[in-house]
Order: sequence, then structure tokens, then C-alpha cells
Amino acid sequence: MATFSAEPGGDSPSVKPTSGQRLFEVHSPSSSLIVFPEDAPLRLESGQLLAPLSIAYQTYGTLNADKSNAILICHALTGDQHVANVHPITGKSGWWETLVGPGKPVDTNRFFVICPNILGGCMGSTGPASLNPKTGKPYGVDFPVITIGDMVDAQVRLIDHLGIDVLFSVIGGSMGGMQVLEWVTRQKHRVATAIPIATAPWHSAQNIAFHEVGRQAVMADPDWRSGNYYEAGVVPKNGLAVARMAAHITYLSEKALQGKFGRNLQDRKARSFSFDADFKIESYLRHQGSTFVDRFDANSYLYITRAMDYFDLEGAYGGKLANAFAGTTAEICVVSFTSDWLYPTRDSKAIVKALNAVAANVSFVEIESDKGHDAFLLDEPEFHATARGFLSAAAAKRGLAQASEAR
Amino acid sequence: MATFSAEPGGDSPSVKPTSGQRLFEVHSPSSSLIVFPEDAPLRLESGQLLAPLSIAYQTYGTLNADKSNAILICHALTGDQHVANVHPITGKSGWWETLVGPGKPVDTNRFFVICPNILGGCMGSTGPASLNPKTGKPYGVDFPVITIGDMVDAQVRLIDHLGIDVLFSVIGGSMGGMQVLEWVTRQKHRVATAIPIATAPWHSAQNIAFHEVGRQAVMADPDWRSGNYYEAGVVPKNGLAVARMAAHITYLSEKALQGKFGRNLQDRKARSFSFDADFKIESYLRHQGSTFVDRFDANSYLYITRAMDYFDLEGAYGGKLANAFAGTTAEICVVSFTSDWLYPTRDSKAIVKALNAVAANVSFVEIESDKGHDAFLLDEPEFHATARGFLSAAAAKRGLAQASEAR
Repeated sequence: MATFSAEPGGDSPSVKPTSGQRLFEVHSPSSSLIVFPEDAPLRLESGQLLAPLSIAYQTYGTLNADKSNAILICHALTGDQHVANVHPITGKSGWWETLVGPGKPVDTNRFFVICPNILGGCMGSTGPASLNPKTGKPYGVDFPVITIGDMVDAQVRLIDHLGIDVLFSVIGGSMGGMQVLEWVTRQKHRVATAIPIATAPWHSAQNIAFHEVGRQAVMADPDWRSGNYYEAGVVPKNGLAVARMAAHITYLSEKALQGKFGRNLQDRKARSFSFDADFKIESYLRHQGSTFVDRFDANSYLYITRAMDYFDLEGAYGGKLANAFAGTTAEICVVSFTSDWLYPTRDSKAIVKALNAVAANVSFVEIESDKGHDAFLLDEPEFHATARGFLSAAAAKRGLAQASEAR
Repeated sequence: MATFSAEPGGDSPSVKPTSGQRLFEVHSPSSSLIVFPEDAPLRLESGQLLAPLSIAYQTYGTLNADKSNAILICHALTGDQHVANVHPITGKSGWWETLVGPGKPVDTNRFFVICPNILGGCMGSTGPASLNPKTGKPYGVDFPVITIGDMVDAQVRLIDHLGIDVLFSVIGGSMGGMQVLEWVTRQKHRVATAIPIATAPWHSAQNIAFHEVGRQAVMADPDWRSGNYYEAGVVPKNGLAVARMAAHITYLSEKALQGKFGRNLQDRKARSFSFDADFKIESYLRHQGSTFVDRFDANSYLYITRAMDYFDLEGAYGGKLANAFAGTTAEICVVSFTSDWLYPTRDSKAIVKALNAVAANVSFVEIESDKGHDAFLLDEPEFHATARGFLSAAAAKRGLAQASEAR
């Protein structure tokens, strides 16, 4: 299979930004890039073929000689490959620097860490903002509807390309955890250990409902233009901001919101008797909405939320979740957080129960936290100690070298 | 004070629909109407004066000779005065026919039931769709921002007009319950009994957050036109539908959603790999959104949610909720539902604790239900038995006549 690999900052040969278009990173990723050409299409769950397929990714640390120290990080809905480096658009720190880096639980002095932007994303991997080879214009809603399994199948190509047979670990939270579960299911012998965090084996009715609200908000924005906003030089920023605001509420706990914001007013001493952002929580949400639209493609938001809604490992395996895990050889550490109401502990327990039913090597840790779903991204010492201990023990068992202190 | 009272279906003398305008019921209420003229303005908490003030209302049953059998029903955010009669726009049954009617717990053969449309509403009472006497055009966002207390002060005028000194009971759920609490607080000697249901003494950060999402969705709709959509003959229906969808999720419980919809598909056997409403929950939410816009004014939605956000009885009484209730003589029955996460039981317990602190006559019932916040509107036998028992005992104690079987 012919592939094209570009250095960070390089363009793929087939995708060039059109003058005046909004430059989502699909057109100029600031990451390593692998492009699978038109003669090597990805077969999607829908039956459609997708080509070319670009995957933008970041790596940290060094792959050892026998390629046994590779860890794949799977990102969540609005995440990207910039796990542990400054983000090229926002200028902020990597989104999981609490967990990944030199000396961190996922120690880049010991492990070779790979994080690809997911299929359907907008940071360099092929998604709805990419150019459709049939038209030479961005796909928009002509992009095929994808699944979490499709995202993993695309990642498999990257791992193949890097010559890695078995991943030492696959780690991800939220939608990243769904990808972890698909790796364990689809690639049973290529995953030594796995850490699905704050995730679920299926998307619940309530979670589908919140996603549908977000999609309707985007689609209600006239600037969405039936998905063809790229060439008009506009983005459905109002709709996408509303979607982000609604989703953001679900990422926090009621207690965290009350503790962080309560009924405190924003830069004022009394109610304004207007529709201004009187309350700190209003100001915070508006900020979350408005900053999100600068770094994220609205159509990617539609496609990725749809993929999450479609996720149902139990349904895909004949209504019995244990069937999904039959034959897995991975050691799996399932992690949930007490105040996560998006993917509550009972969802993690369903995963653990199914893994136990096939006698898999599984451990489960529920972390006490007030921080809601977002806890997995935050400084949670007990979570980090869990990840560090699990990975260190598994690495020692496999004879992986200690962290290089030289780096 | 000069007032004007119209029969059901009558127009007020000062508000006439402009040709081509959307006829929210403010312009032609199909209910009894009382209009307080310009020389009798309502002083609002903001300090503004509001006049004229119309209040549309429904009554059921007969007021007895000593006017001691009157019950005021306070409606919730998207409710109206049509408690127990067919709705003039939707053609559906009254919204609380489970509770109110002949032989029902709030027995209209025994009690005289009054339900006014709230100040700020769109079913005949003065609200943002009403004509601004200064301009002759609908207020839009020139309507003053109101509070729950203002709504109650407007209701007091109606009760005065009806010649009722003491209400036998004031009953309401959700925002209706907030009005009940304001009645108990502001009109200590005019309320014999009160039933605040599925409510809270303050609006939480999370609830403000959900409301802010809804308001931003409305305001993001270009058809909102900065609130001046009435004369353009449009309504911000897409934005209002998104707001309704987001809010609707909070009215149900996660368990109710899972039980009622789960991951079931709507009229199809497999995923469509599109953005169609594949799932029943999507179809249901879209329906909730699209039907709501036919009966509700978007600006009313903004103003009423704002009033709820501003509600904080504790803050209004120097940070001590008990102060709000000092001196109350009402017998109060507080009701919550186990699966209500919008106004959870702990909020009701805060009310009960504060009432106990001032030695008020309070009872508290937590009803076991999977139906979430909406349980108060649904067929919940334990809730209905509670209301029936509480009202019957209080009526007997006060020597109110038994239900007339002739009616």
C-alpha cells in the first residue's frame, strides 16, 4: 500500500486550502501526517469507501527497538492530537498534560505515545471539511456518516504504518474510551493493556438527546447553509456555540457548578434586570461557546456526535455485551468518577461485568470526585496514581526498560 | 381603582392585534380578563412601573358566600391558565386535569379554583408581546424584566378584584411552586394552606445554565430580530424549538428516558447513516420543539426564564431562608419527587428546614417516582392522595362544605 508521510507542518499532496476558506487544520495540519491514497480506501461500517484518508498525529517519546513501548491515546469529542504540546490554534497547553509527559503517569521518558486526530475531526485528519475528490470542494454533508469503529479502523492503519504490531496500551476517556473498547473488541491480539475512562459501552437515550439538541442548534443557524458554509467564508458560530454550551453543562457536576459559580454575579453587585450575563455561570458558558467556534468545525461536531450516538457495543454483538469481549487477551483497567452523570459508574460497571463474564483480566476503580465527567481531564491524584500503578506494573511484567532519565 | 373586566373571548379595550401579526393570546384571550388601567400601574421589583396590566384567568367551580373556598393555581414556565379545560390553541386537555376537576384532589365541586396566566406570559396576561402604550407596538425587549415576586403581586390584584381576602390554598409545581413560596412570604395572612411542589427556594447554577442555553438559542435565531419579530410576521421558531428541546431533557429523568425511548429506532429497522431522526428520542424531542413554537411566544420564554433565574428567597432575605417565612400562618405541604433532578428533594428539604426554623405548620412528602420533574403533571397516585388528604383535612378543619354532588 502506497502511503505518503509528511513532516509536521507539511501539506498533504491532495488537499490544499482554497483561498478565502476557513483554514481548519484539515488543510494544513501542524502535525505529522499520513495519507492513504485513493487506491487504498477505508471501508466504513455504512458500506461506503473513503479515500484518500489522511491521519494527522502527534508522537511523544521514542519507540524502542522491538516496538513494544507504544501507547495510543484516543481523544474525546472535541479533543485532538495535541495531548501534550501547545495547541497550534489556542496556544494553550496540551489537553492531557496532567496525565501524559516526562515523569507523568503516561511517562514519555519510558513510553512512545501516539495520538491521532480522529477520522471525522478537523485538525488534519479526513473529515467533512476535507476536500471531496469527486468535486474538489469540501465534503460538507456529503461526507459519509462514520462510527467509532471506523475511527478505530483508521487508527489501525496508522499503527500498521508505524510498524507496531502490539500496542502496549490504548488509553482514552469519554469518546476516547469508546475507541479503547473498540480496539479491545476489534483488535484482540494487538492490545496488551487498555484503560477506558469515564465511558460507556453504549450511548444512552439522554446522551443522544443532548447531542440532538446540539445538532439542531447548529443546523438551525442560517450560516450552516445545509453544511456548505466553507466556501461562503462563514461558519455557523452561533449555533455551534449554543451546542457547546448545552454540552458543557453535561461535562460538569451539579455540585461543581454550584461550588464554582453558585448564584454569584459577574462583575456587578446587583441584578441588572436585563439579559446581560449577570451570573458568573452565564458568562462562563458564553465564553465556552464563543472560544470553541474558533477551533472546531461545526460539521465535524455533527459527524462525531452522530458516531457517538451510533455507538452500542451490546447491540452490535447480538444484544450481549460479553460477546464483544470474547477472546480478548488485554489487561484492562476501567475507571469511572463518582459525580460523572454523562457516563455514570453504572456504565463502567456494565463493561466490567461483561469482561468478567468472559474471564478477562479486568480491574475497576471508581474515583471519588466532585468534578463531573471532566474529572478525567483534571488534576485527580487518585486517578493519576491508578494509571501510573497499572502501567508501571504492566510494563515491568513485560520487561519494558525503566524511564530514560537522559531525556 | 378603576378596572375593566371582560367575559371570556372579549378583547381588552386597549390592546388590539395589528393586522398580519402573530396572534398570541395576549391580543385576544379566550379567558376572563381583568385590565388595570394606566393610572394604576404595578410597581415592579426593578423599580419600573407597568401599566396597563391585563390578567387573563380561568375559574372552575363556585365561590361560596363567605369566599372561603378559593384555591389559586400557579402555573409553571410554559403553562397557562387552562388548567382543566381544553386548550384554545392546541385542542388538548387542560395541563393539570389529573389534579384539578370535579371529584379530583382539587375538587371543583367543593372549591373555587382560579388560575391566572402569569405576568410576562402570552395567553392574555401582559407580556412582551403586548402593546407598549408608549409606542403602540409590541413591547419586545422593551418589556421590563420581571420577577417571580412581580408575578405574585399581579395575582394579588386579581384576588383583590375578586373580593377574596384569604385564599384557602395556593398550589403550584416547578415555577408555580416558586410563586406559592412568594405568596406565603409576601401575603402571610392571606394564605390558609399552600402546596409548593417540585420546586426550590432558589435557582441553582445548573438551572441558570440550562436557561441561558435556551435564551442564547432564541437570540441566535435571526428571526428573533433583537426581539422585534412581531411586526415582521416571523417568529424565531428554530431557536425556540432548540431551547424547548434542551429544557425538555431536564424535565424527565435519565431512567424515564431510557425506559421510554432507550436506543429504540423510529420507524426503521437499522441506522440510516444520516442525520435523520433515527432514534425515537430524537423524533420525540423534535416534536416537542416544533409543537411548542405554535403556542408560545419566544420573548415570553426569555422573560420567564429570567424571572426564574432571579428567584432566590434566601438572598432576598439577607441570606437566611427562614427569615422569608417568619410570621407565616399557613399550613404548608411540601412535595418532591425522587427522580426530579431539576428541583431535587434537597431543595424541598431546604424549604422545610427553613419553615421548621420559624415553627411553621409544615409537612413534607417525597414521592417515589421514575418520571423526573414532570411527575407533578402526571398520574402519580401517591401525590394525588397526598394532595387530596391534605386539602380535605384542612377544609374540614375550616368547616368548608362537602362537595356539592349536584354539579
